[in-house]
Amino acid sequence: MRDVAVIGVGMTQFGELWEQSYRNLFVEAAAAAMRDAGVEKIDSMYVGCMSSGLFVGQEHVGSLMADYLGVAPVPAVRVESACASGGVAVRQAFIEVASGMADVVLAGGVEKMTDVDGAMATYALATAADAEYEGFQGATFPGLYAMIANAHMKKYKTTSEMLAQVAVKNHENGSLNPFAQFQNRITVKQVLASTMIADPLHILDCSPVTDGAAAVILAPVELAERLGKPPIRIIGSGMATDTIALHSRRDLTWLSAVEAATKRALEMAKLKIKDIDFAEVHDCFTIAELTVLEAMGVYKRGHAGPATKSGETKRDGRFPVNPSGGLKSKGHPVGATGVAQVIEIVKQLRGEAEGERQLKNVKRGIAQNMGGSGGSSVVTILEA
Amino acid sequence: MRDVAVIGVGMTQFGELWEQSYRNLFVEAAAAAMRDAGVEKIDSMYVGCMSSGLFVGQEHVGSLMADYLGVAPVPAVRVESACASGGVAVRQAFIEVASGMADVVLAGGVEKMTDVDGAMATYALATAADAEYEGFQGATFPGLYAMIANAHMKKYKTTSEMLAQVAVKNHENGSLNPFAQFQNRITVKQVLASTMIADPLHILDCSPVTDGAAAVILAPVELAERLGKPPIRIIGSGMATDTIALHSRRDLTWLSAVEAATKRALEMAKLKIKDIDFAEVHDCFTIAELTVLEAMGVYKRGHAGPATKSGETKRDGRFPVNPSGGLKSKGHPVGATGVAQVIEIVKQLRGEAEGERQLKNVKRGIAQNMGGSGGSSVVTILEA
Repeated sequence: MRDVAVIGVGMTQFGELWEQSYRNLFVEAAAAAMRDAGVEKIDSMYVGCMSSGLFVGQEHVGSLMADYLGVAPVPAVRVESACASGGVAVRQAFIEVASGMADVVLAGGVEKMTDVDGAMATYALATAADAEYEGFQGATFPGLYAMIANAHMKKYKTTSEMLAQVAVKNHENGSLNPFAQFQNRITVKQVLASTMIADPLHILDCSPVTDGAAAVILAPVELAERLGKPPIRIIGSGMATDTIALHSRRDLTWLSAVEAATKRALEMAKLKIKDIDFAEVHDCFTIAELTVLEAMGVYKRGHAGPATKSGETKRDGRFPVNPSGGLKSKGHPVGATGVAQVIEIVKQLRGEAEGERQLKNVKRGIAQNMGGSGGSSVVTILEA
Repeated sequence: MRDVAVIGVGMTQFGELWEQSYRNLFVEAAAAAMRDAGVEKIDSMYVGCMSSGLFVGQEHVGSLMADYLGVAPVPAVRVESACASGGVAVRQAFIEVASGMADVVLAGGVEKMTDVDGAMATYALATAADAEYEGFQGATFPGLYAMIANAHMKKYKTTSEMLAQVAVKNHENGSLNPFAQFQNRITVKQVLASTMIADPLHILDCSPVTDGAAAVILAPVELAERLGKPPIRIIGSGMATDTIALHSRRDLTWLSAVEAATKRALEMAKLKIKDIDFAEVHDCFTIAELTVLEAMGVYKRGHAGPATKSGETKRDGRFPVNPSGGLKSKGHPVGATGVAQVIEIVKQLRGEAEGERQLKNVKRGIAQNMGGSGGSSVVTILEA
């Protein structure tokens, strides 16, 4: 297998982009990534997208995007693993470049979620759960994560304040990110006073419905070294699955797909989690950030809440988490999220994060993307 | 890159399977392929599926299927390229095994199309076209292929009888395939007398709406040689895209994605098309089989109709096409079709095709799978 590096990144503004179309969003991000990489041609591409059929009435996404990006006849494949679709796009591009099948491969992600009303968006998102045993019975994603949160609170004495602190930290980071959907700071008091969506999750514990796209360009390290920007190597990639439905799990508080994907990525990189400097993780709900950090081995079981409360995961903390603002503040266009996480890692490792968001002395970052309530997870480790 | 072989195949009955669920179909095919390969574990899997969101209200397909197949936590990715999704699954599995990331990889495909009514199925299928410029304007797939057929008839004097002969041949082959949806023979007269769907395409020029699943197991050739069945090598794989919308093409009769994908696959195999003994091609409509054979270089432009009429593509002809019965007779569960094509090639090369369907003295076969009206195509060449 060949060594692989990210040589270009690009993304759109994340937000409610009513004046933008599905295809235009993708093309904007992809073209920005190609410009950043300094390449005019690509050999192959992957598009992460969760549910374009339900959100915009469009499948055959690879063909559409290759056509509108002007790169046909290159191979173009849409990949889907619910909200981990973007992470999968990066992983498939990594495998293709590593294999030698192609040299310059684009991995993008996109979702246009605001062309439908809220009820339809909730239905579309619920297709990431087990349709027959969860979705059709009325379970929504806030409901599923509320069950996880309740179990975690009961088992580990995690509090609503600890959950709120995740949102407060991520909004603080996102306030410095010009691409973020929400660039406002919030307080713990505001989170706790906000509308209850699914007890114990308030609306400010939830990531928003978002339009947006993101793209990265991958190439063999040898080729990357001859181009302009410093190549950021992908030194580990792991993917794993778990039961799609919550009722099949032994322990609601444990995300075993995250544990397994992290383990594989670290094994490939020949590293331990303590060797990593910072992370972008899948905070679709505040409780997700805590359970993910525990499954990744950053904190012991039940310790992520107190650590967050004490500020360890802030930008100046021991282990910064979601310097981009995370899904909570940056926004969560589900198919694009996994790619946007990798973009943040690359920007941080290049020293190109905007303003105060730039972390100091970081050499390695980890991106963790998750599908549904943890039925799948993709983990990518990058090194400057 | 490592050499890769197919070591196991399995599929369900194709048809209107009202007593079967989406997930059960996939598991049945995948388990059959694992039994055929003699493996109890896999390292990774791909699921080709076009539009489970619209057909059965379920995304996150990789996680669901890995869970129900009992193979979680293995990585499981759903891939989509409209009706070429199955071909893409095989291609991604090929790339992953070739890369060295995984040894035993399952590539499956599935579609459950009869849980919705005909109007919804037509809408879901139209999402393979350009939604904004074709689907939302009322274009359906029979309509799009009818435009291609009219152009071909005008340019090359192709006749309705020649189109009908494709259906007659494929039903004759399918009548010998116990997995086929339609196992009845038909006549040219019956095709021409059948209901007109989109002039000049009669209903017997159209492939049906089908439920079904198919799966193959891939492994490095070295490993394959130590297992029971004779390994069938994948010696060429090509994928290409074209404009998703018909109105953007210079020539409606020319499928340039099929041409490019075939060229790439042949280059990888270091072969010419004349070195191939038989083909499974994407006859979603009768006209498609003719235009595909011309784009693949089997026949010159305009020559596929007369060649079909003269019997060259029958089982005992110069170049047998669709010995399985093709999409027309075997059925077309869109996500499964590309995998089922590869299964037919493997069975023929192993000498395991049922009864009279077995071709004599075949050493190499080619499978051509297509998305939409030719916006994407995947071509796979296999050798005994």
